[in-house]
Amino acid sequence: MTDITKPATAVNIEAKLALFAEQWAPHRIAGINDYDVKIAKVQGEFVWHTHEATDELFLVVSGLLTIQLRDGDVVLGPGEIYVVPKGVEHCPRAEEETAILMLEPAGTVNTGSAGGPRTREPVPLD
Amino acid sequence: MTDITKPATAVNIEAKLALFAEQWAPHRIAGINDYDVKIAKVQGEFVWHTHEATDELFLVVSGLLTIQLRDGDVVLGPGEIYVVPKGVEHCPRAEEETAILMLEPAGTVNTGSAGGPRTREPVPLD
Repeated sequence: MTDITKPATAVNIEAKLALFAEQWAPHRIAGINDYDVKIAKVQGEFVWHTHEATDELFLVVSGLLTIQLRDGDVVLGPGEIYVVPKGVEHCPRAEEETAILMLEPAGTVNTGSAGGPRTREPVPLD
Repeated sequence: MTDITKPATAVNIEAKLALFAEQWAPHRIAGINDYDVKIAKVQGEFVWHTHEATDELFLVVSGLLTIQLRDGDVVLGPGEIYVVPKGVEHCPRAEEETAILMLEPAGTVNTGSAGGPRTREPVPLD
């Protein structure tokens, strides 16, 4: 939910990215209705997982993100978007550190139905 | 809705922007659940309007967007986000041509409750 009591100011994605270093840790920078806008720094390979109840949007801010799907890979550079359909197993991977923006309903778990040690609650930066 | 029968390829925002010239005409480039991801080129002043049922997310791709609110202006440069809360009257304005990305539920009308001659259905580019 948008907090209408907050002053109306722009959210600068690069400035928010400068606030943290931990990789694969989603940070929430904005909300629209019941969706979260999150950013993360990623490098290496994540875990194969599925979101059974929702699509998941990825937008690359810097670097190069490979979204591995069981049918093949999607490679995203800066300014490129891919929406993983709900129920489709995927595993993000990045050679160099890559900054990404994600959009999905609040409460969506980063590791989806896989769970495990890489599960992280989003850190609020909004 | 995401069409899972489509091949898995990235959506390049700049490439989609190159496909049209008309200003203030929303073009849909992706969908996530029942939300549309739209892009537009804007210059000059739009109309004051309100979305009574939904927040509306703006992300500037290039240029400079001023979102006029009755309480003051929010100015967004490239890589900056602002979410107009539902029910809050606003009027976008840009001196130079500015490319923006918008996110909102499918069916949200660009002129909101104001309606009028600047109302446009989103053009599908996805």
